[in-house]
Amino acid sequence: MNFVEVIAKKRDGSELSEAEVQAFVHGASTGQVPDEQLAAMLMAICIRGASRSETQRLVEAMRDSGVLWRTGESFPEAVDKHSTGGVGDTVSLVFAPLVAACGVPVAMMAGAGLGHTQGTLDKLAAIPGFRTAANRGEAFDRLGRCGAFFAAQSQEIAPADRKLYLLRDTTGTVPSLPLIVASIMSKKLAVGARRLVLDVKCGSGAFCKTLAEARDLAGALVAVGEGAGVEVAAAITDMSQPLGDRLGCANEVRAAVEVLGGAGDERLRRLTVELAVDALAMAGRPRPDALAEIERRLADGSALARWGEIVRAHGGDPDAARLPRPRRTVTVPAPADGFVTGVDAEALGWVAVSLGAGRLRQGDQVDLAAGLQVHTRVGDRVEAGRPIATLEIGERPVDAEATAARVAAAIRIGETRPAPVPLVLARVGGKA
Amino acid sequence: MNFVEVIAKKRDGSELSEAEVQAFVHGASTGQVPDEQLAAMLMAICIRGASRSETQRLVEAMRDSGVLWRTGESFPEAVDKHSTGGVGDTVSLVFAPLVAACGVPVAMMAGAGLGHTQGTLDKLAAIPGFRTAANRGEAFDRLGRCGAFFAAQSQEIAPADRKLYLLRDTTGTVPSLPLIVASIMSKKLAVGARRLVLDVKCGSGAFCKTLAEARDLAGALVAVGEGAGVEVAAAITDMSQPLGDRLGCANEVRAAVEVLGGAGDERLRRLTVELAVDALAMAGRPRPDALAEIERRLADGSALARWGEIVRAHGGDPDAARLPRPRRTVTVPAPADGFVTGVDAEALGWVAVSLGAGRLRQGDQVDLAAGLQVHTRVGDRVEAGRPIATLEIGERPVDAEATAARVAAAIRIGETRPAPVPLVLARVGGKA
Repeated sequence: MNFVEVIAKKRDGSELSEAEVQAFVHGASTGQVPDEQLAAMLMAICIRGASRSETQRLVEAMRDSGVLWRTGESFPEAVDKHSTGGVGDTVSLVFAPLVAACGVPVAMMAGAGLGHTQGTLDKLAAIPGFRTAANRGEAFDRLGRCGAFFAAQSQEIAPADRKLYLLRDTTGTVPSLPLIVASIMSKKLAVGARRLVLDVKCGSGAFCKTLAEARDLAGALVAVGEGAGVEVAAAITDMSQPLGDRLGCANEVRAAVEVLGGAGDERLRRLTVELAVDALAMAGRPRPDALAEIERRLADGSALARWGEIVRAHGGDPDAARLPRPRRTVTVPAPADGFVTGVDAEALGWVAVSLGAGRLRQGDQVDLAAGLQVHTRVGDRVEAGRPIATLEIGERPVDAEATAARVAAAIRIGETRPAPVPLVLARVGGKA
Repeated sequence: MNFVEVIAKKRDGSELSEAEVQAFVHGASTGQVPDEQLAAMLMAICIRGASRSETQRLVEAMRDSGVLWRTGESFPEAVDKHSTGGVGDTVSLVFAPLVAACGVPVAMMAGAGLGHTQGTLDKLAAIPGFRTAANRGEAFDRLGRCGAFFAAQSQEIAPADRKLYLLRDTTGTVPSLPLIVASIMSKKLAVGARRLVLDVKCGSGAFCKTLAEARDLAGALVAVGEGAGVEVAAAITDMSQPLGDRLGCANEVRAAVEVLGGAGDERLRRLTVELAVDALAMAGRPRPDALAEIERRLADGSALARWGEIVRAHGGDPDAARLPRPRRTVTVPAPADGFVTGVDAEALGWVAVSLGAGRLRQGDQVDLAAGLQVHTRVGDRVEAGRPIATLEIGERPVDAEATAARVAAAIRIGETRPAPVPLVLARVGGKA
C-alpha cells in the first residue's frame, strides 16, 4: 500500500477502509510511517473528520497495537471510569474505593496531567509510598485483594496512541473528535473492563465548551464502546466552574479523603455519588438501592476504610496528615461586595499549573504540595476583604501578588445572584 | 511565536499574517520547524486553501529564503518561460534560441522531471558535453554571449521551496493551488527576470484537468507575478494529447532541432511560435511584426544557428547525430481501422517513464536514449496493422509486448472523426 495515496484519500474527504486505517495505526506504532506522513494524516482527519465506522476502526486498530489486559475475562463485574478532564475533579479517587466498597471491582488506568487540569497519576504520587501498578499481574492482584487498582498508562498498552498523542500535541491536531475518541477508547478497550462510566465535562473549563459539543463527544464515546461490546454510561457534567474546592495534587487527595469520610466538598461528593450509582446500576442494582448503599458506605466509614486498604495495597501510607503541605499560604480577598457570577475554571487551572501543580510540557516536574483553595461558588454572596481563595505555595518561586490578582480576576463578582447551573447536564447510555 | 498556534490558525481556516507566513517559510529553510509541523501546515493549506494575499506572502517569503539573481537589473529585456508540465512538451528548447535570435534575452531556470512528464534538465543532459550554468556569474556570462542561459535549479535559489517540494511529495500535499503557485513563482522571482511567459497545460495529461482549474491556476500565477512587479503572459494550452510526436530525452532534443530547422512537428512548432510572439510582444514589438520575424528566423536557419551557439556556450556539441540512440525499436500497429478519438498523454508519459525516460523517485537514473514516437494525432485516420507508435528501447530490460499493448490501449480508435480541439484554449495577462 502506498501511504501517500491513503493520505490523499482522507485529504479529499473520503472514508478510509479497514486496511488503510490499520496501515496508519501500524505505521505509527512501528515507526514504519514517518512522522511527517503521520502528521499530514492527523491534520487531514482533524479537518475532514471521520465517520462512525472509521472511528471504530481507528479505535480498535489502536487498541490492538499493544497488549490486551482482558480485565473483563477475569473480572466480569469490573467497571472502569474516565473523565475527559476538569479542574478540581478528583472524582476518581473517591469513586474507586466507594464503588469497590459496594462490591463492584474498579479497574482504573490513570494518566499524568497536561495543560490546565491535574492528572490522577500526579495526585496519587502525593501519597507517600504509593506505586501505581506497573503490569497486568500486579494490577489484577490488587483488584482481587482490595477490589480496585490504579495503573499507570504503560508502554505496552496502545503504543499507537502514545505515539499519536505526542505528535498531535506538536502539530495542532489535538481538537479533533475522532482523534480524542480514539485516544480515550483505545486505552479503555485495551484494559478491557466490560463496563465504563464516563464523565464528559462541559463548559469554559473543559474541552467541550457547549452542550452540543459534549453531546457529540459523549455520543461518539458511547457508540464506539458499545461497538466493541462494552457497556457505557456517560454523564455530561458542568465544568463552567471548578468541580471541587481544592486544586493541586496533595490538595485533591485531601479533598477525596474528606468526601470518603462522609463530609467534604458538596459538589465533588454529589457528582461522585451520581457516577457511582451509574456503576452499580450497570452491575444490576436498582438505582434507589444503589444510592442508599453508597450513602451508607460514606456515612459508616467503610468507604474510607476501603481507601486505606487500596492505598496500602499500592504500597502507600493512607494517613492524610503525611501528605505534602505547602511552604506558605496567601489569602486572596474579595475585591468587592456582591454575588459570585462566575469562577473561571480554566484560568484557575492555569494558576495551579503556574504554582507547580501541573505541567506545561511532557516531563515537567510537578510540585505535589502546590495548589489552590477556592472558598466561593457561583451564586455565593461575598463581602469585600473577606477571603475568596487561598494560594498554597510550594517550592517554586512565585510572584504571590500577581498570582493573587489572577485568581481575583478569575472570580467574577456582580450585583445579582445568577441562576444556578445543574451539575449533571445530560446523560447518554447507561441503565435506568 | 508558538508555531503550533500558527498551524491551528490555518487548520481553522483563518488567514495567516505576514509574520506567521515568514515563520513557516523560515522554519522550513533553516530546519527550525520540524518536518511533522511543516507537514501538518502543508495539509492545512492544502485543504483550507490560501487567500491571494497569503499566497503572495508565501511566494515572496520563499523567494527571499535564498539568494536573488536579480536578472532584470542586468538584463532588463530578459524574458523567462515556464510550463506547468506536459507530455512531449519540448517548447523550452525551441523557445530559447528562437526568441534570443529575435534579440530578446532568455533566462531559463530548468528542473528535472518527476512523474509522467520529462524535465528540461534531463533533455539537455542528452546533449554530449552540455553543462547547465551552476551559478549567477556563469549564467549571466552565457546570457551576454549568446542571448540565453539554461541553469539548473541550484541549492542557493529558494531553498524553502526545495524543502517543501520534497515534503509535499511524501505527504499527499502536491495538488494545492497556493502551494503550486508558491513553488513555481518563488523560483521565477528569485531568478528575477522582469517578464515571464507561462504555458499552463490543461487536459487529461496535465495537473489541471479542466479549463476552470487552468484558469484558476493561470489567474493566480499572473496575479502573484504582477504583485511582485513582473509582467506575465499566460496561455492555457491543450494537454488532452501529447504536444509533440516524440517523448524521451534525446528524442525531444531531436524534435526541437527539427522545429528550429524550419520543419518538425506542427503542434510543437505552432505553440512555440505563439509563446515566442507573447515574449516579443512584451518586449514592445507589434504582434504581426513579431510573428513575421519569428517565421523568418525559423525559415532562414538563424534560429537553428542560435541553438548551436547556445549549446556550445554551455559546453555541448550541437550535432544532433551525436545524441544517444535507442538499442532497438518496436513498432506498435493500429489494432483496427478508424479515426483516432483520443491519445492518453498521461498514459504515454508513464510508458516513457517505464522505458527509462523519466523518474518514479527523486534520484532515479534516466535513460537518455529511451522514449517513444507517436505517429498519430486525435482526428487522424488509421488503418489496422499500420504503425501508430514506435517504442525506443534503451538499456533497461523491457517487456516490449506488454509495453506495446499499453501504448495501443492509450490510443483510442473509433468510427467517427472527433471535433478538433484548439491548441491555445485561453489567455490570461500579456500584451495585445
